Amino acid sequence: MSSFMGRVTTREAGTHVGERVRVHGWLHARRRLGGVTFLVIRDGWGTIQAVAETEDELAPLQAAEAGVESVIAVEGLVMRAEQAPDGIELHQLAIEVVTPVTESPPLTLSKRELKASLTTLLDEAVIANRHPTRRAVFRLQAGTMAAYRATLAARGFTEIQTPKLVASATESGANVFKLDYFGRPAYLAQSPQFYKQIMVGVFERVFEVAPVFRAEPHDTTRHLNEYVSLDAEMGFIESHFTVMAVLRDVIAGILDALRESYAPELKLLASSVPEVPAEIPHIHFAEAQELILRLHGADVRGEPDLSPQDERWLGEWAQREHGSDFLFVTGYPMRKRPFYTHPDPARPEYSNSFDLLFRGTELVTGGQRLHRYGDYLAALERAGLPIAPFECYLEAFRYVMPPHGGFAIGLERLLMQLLGLPSVKLAALFPRDINRLEP
Amino acid sequence: MSSFMGRVTTREAGTHVGERVRVHGWLHARRRLGGVTFLVIRDGWGTIQAVAETEDELAPLQAAEAGVESVIAVEGLVMRAEQAPDGIELHQLAIEVVTPVTESPPLTLSKRELKASLTTLLDEAVIANRHPTRRAVFRLQAGTMAAYRATLAARGFTEIQTPKLVASATESGANVFKLDYFGRPAYLAQSPQFYKQIMVGVFERVFEVAPVFRAEPHDTTRHLNEYVSLDAEMGFIESHFTVMAVLRDVIAGILDALRESYAPELKLLASSVPEVPAEIPHIHFAEAQELILRLHGADVRGEPDLSPQDERWLGEWAQREHGSDFLFVTGYPMRKRPFYTHPDPARPEYSNSFDLLFRGTELVTGGQRLHRYGDYLAALERAGLPIAPFECYLEAFRYVMPPHGGFAIGLERLLMQLLGLPSVKLAALFPRDINRLEP
Repeated sequence: MSSFMGRVTTREAGTHVGERVRVHGWLHARRRLGGVTFLVIRDGWGTIQAVAETEDELAPLQAAEAGVESVIAVEGLVMRAEQAPDGIELHQLAIEVVTPVTESPPLTLSKRELKASLTTLLDEAVIANRHPTRRAVFRLQAGTMAAYRATLAARGFTEIQTPKLVASATESGANVFKLDYFGRPAYLAQSPQFYKQIMVGVFERVFEVAPVFRAEPHDTTRHLNEYVSLDAEMGFIESHFTVMAVLRDVIAGILDALRESYAPELKLLASSVPEVPAEIPHIHFAEAQELILRLHGADVRGEPDLSPQDERWLGEWAQREHGSDFLFVTGYPMRKRPFYTHPDPARPEYSNSFDLLFRGTELVTGGQRLHRYGDYLAALERAGLPIAPFECYLEAFRYVMPPHGGFAIGLERLLMQLLGLPSVKLAALFPRDINRLEP
Repeated sequence: MSSFMGRVTTREAGTHVGERVRVHGWLHARRRLGGVTFLVIRDGWGTIQAVAETEDELAPLQAAEAGVESVIAVEGLVMRAEQAPDGIELHQLAIEVVTPVTESPPLTLSKRELKASLTTLLDEAVIANRHPTRRAVFRLQAGTMAAYRATLAARGFTEIQTPKLVASATESGANVFKLDYFGRPAYLAQSPQFYKQIMVGVFERVFEVAPVFRAEPHDTTRHLNEYVSLDAEMGFIESHFTVMAVLRDVIAGILDALRESYAPELKLLASSVPEVPAEIPHIHFAEAQELILRLHGADVRGEPDLSPQDERWLGEWAQREHGSDFLFVTGYPMRKRPFYTHPDPARPEYSNSFDLLFRGTELVTGGQRLHRYGDYLAALERAGLPIAPFECYLEAFRYVMPPHGGFAIGLERLLMQLLGLPSVKLAALFPRDINRLEP
C-alpha cells in the first residue's frame, strides 16, 4: 500500500528515516517521563511513538483538552530510536487536533494488554476492538478468509453466494430462526448445505464464505448464534478421502499465509501457527474407540460419537505417534449423521464422513454425500422426513449428480483454537449469543 | 488448475492433442449427423465435443438408457478439429456411465441459447443454472467479488464480517424483516452501514461482501429482497471526492479483471465491459438540473431527487460530452439522504454525497458521513429519531472518529447493468422476491 493524501501510515514511516512525515490517527497513549512527553499514535495499521520535548509542541492538545482516543495529525521528523517499540520515533512535532475527545473511554486501550472481563470486552466491543490485540485477531480473520478463497480458487473452485432466507429448515426443524416473509414462514439458513450441493451440478467445485444462523439456546464459550461458515463442496470424488486431501491443502494454505503475512499479529498475540503434515494422519472411528480402550482403559465402543475426553486422548495420541497437531477421524456411525450422509459401502453402519481434530478438539466436519436420487428418497423415508420441503434440492439429484462431498469450517472457531482464545465470542467482531444482540 | 484424479477438465483438454485423456461431466447434448454421433460433455469449466463413429462406443449409454444430463466419464483421443466448437474433439471413445438419467430435464439445456420465460428460469434455477450462459453470469459474479476484494486490499482495506441479526432497524423502521430472537425482537440487517462506520475506528479502511435484507413489497425487475452488498468505508478523507476516487479504482479494477480473465464468459453472453476513464466526470446535482432544463426544456429544479428520465439524459450527456459510460452526480439535497449524511459545508442544503450513474442508471450510492458526536445528536433530533437504539453506534463517535465516508454496490445490480440482463433476478443464483423463497 502506498501512502495517500500526503500522509504516511505507521507501517510506512520506517522507510522515511531522516524525513519529515505526517501521520494521522488516534492518540493511543500519552505519558510524561524525564521531562519529555511520549505520545503513541495509532492508525489503522499500527502505532508509532512521537516525542514532544517542549510544551509548545503539546499546546494544540492542551488547547482542545484532547485526551486519549482523540483523532490527531502529527507531523514530525522520523528518527531511529532503539528503545522505541518499532525502532523509530517522531521528533520536532507539529500536532493538529482533528476530533478531540475529553471523556475517558470505557476501557483503557493504552496498555499493552487489554485487561477487562469477557462481558466488558463484548459490551464495549465498539471501543475494545480498537486495541492492538483485538485488531490482531480480526486482521488474522481477514487473512484466513483471503487464504481460504485463494487456496480453493487455485484448485478450480468457484465462489458462490446462496440465499440465507429459505423456505424450510435445512437439516432439522430445531434450532432455526423463523420469520414472517410477506405473510408466509421463512427461516434463516443454518448452513448452505443444500445449495452448495446443488451448485456442484453447476460448477463441480464451489465454496462460500457467509453467515449462518443457529437458534441454539446455549450460552457457552463454544457457541455463537450467528457465525461465518467457510463452506466447500466438490464433485467427482472417489470418497471422503478426496475431500480430506483438499481440506488438508486448505488448512495448510491458511496457516502458511498467516505465518508468512501476519507475523506481527501472531507475535502480538504470543501465538504461533502449527505445521500441517503433508498427509494428516487418519484413524477410523471404530479403531479410535479400540485405541482408547487399549491406551486408557475406557470402553467407549458402541457410543455413537466421541466425547470431548475421547477427542483429547486422540489428539495426544496423534501428537505422540505422528508428531501432528491434526488428526482425521473417519467413518462416524451413520445414525449420528444427517440424512444426506453417504454410507461406507463396505460397512454401511459407518459413514464416509470425517471430523478433523486440531489439538484434540473438533475443528471441521465433512464427508461424502449421497448422490443418487433413489438413495435420497430412501434416506428421507428412513429419517421419517416428508419429501415436499426438499423438492428443489432433490431436483439436482433427479437430473443428476456425480459422487460428491465437502466440508464446513467455522471461521470463529478456527481462530479461537488457533489463537487459544478463551471464548469463540472473542473471535467475532460483534458476536451474537442468546443474551446478546448488541453492539 | 492442474488436472486431478487422472482426469482432465474440458479447459485443459486442448493441451493434450494426440493423447488419450479422460473427461468427466454431464452429457450436455447428443445428436446424430451423417452416420456419426456427436456428444457434448459439460464439466464444471466448459464443454468438449466427442465423436462416436461406432455403435459399440455408444453401447454403455444405450445399456443404461442414459439421456442428456447423465453423469458420464469419457476416455478418448484428443484431436484437432477446425469445425468443433473449441477446435478439438475426442475420438475413439470409451464411455462409462456414472449416474444415468432417463427423464428429460424440465428445461432444454443442450441448445446454445436457453429459451425459457423468466418465471421458468427462476422456478427451475437448480437445473437452469447448469446452462453455459447462466454459468457465465455466475462465473462473472465470482470474478467481480474477487476483483472487488483485491482492489481494496491493495489499497489498505481490511475485510470484515459484521452481524446480520441486529437489535434495531438500521436506517428506518420500514422494509425490515423482523424475527423472534429468544423472546425479544431482532431484525435482519438492511446494510452494514453502522458497523462499517464503527470499524473505521478500528482499521480506518474496511470492506465487506455479505448479504443484506430488504422487506420491500415490490416485485420489479430491479428489486431483490436479499442481495449481496459490496460495502466499503474509509477514514481520513478530505470529502466525498476522496471516496469517489477509490470507487473509480474499484470499478476499474473489477472491469479490468473481467476483461482480462473472463473473455470466454463475456463472449458467450455477447457482452463487453466498458473502459473506465482515469477520472470519471462529475456534475453537481443543482448543475445537473440546470443542464436538463437547458438541453431538454424540462424544469426539474426544486425536485429533491433525479428521475429515471433525468438519469438517462445525464447519461447521454456524459457519453456525448466526455465519452464516458460513467458519471458522478454529487451533492444530492440533504432532505432525501439518511441522517448520518454529511452536509456540504459551503451549501448545507446539499450533501457531500454522490451517485455513480452507469449508462444513465444509478449503480452506486455513497458519500461522506457525519463524524462529530454532537452532529449525530443534532441529526437524530432533527430526524425525530430516539437516541436509545443508536447508543452502540454513537459510542464510536463519542470516542471519536475522523472524517470518513464510503459506498455500497449491489452485486446483482452491477452484473445486471453490465451484462444487460432483463431482470436483476437473473443475476442471483437463487433470487428472493416477494413471491419467491424457493428454490
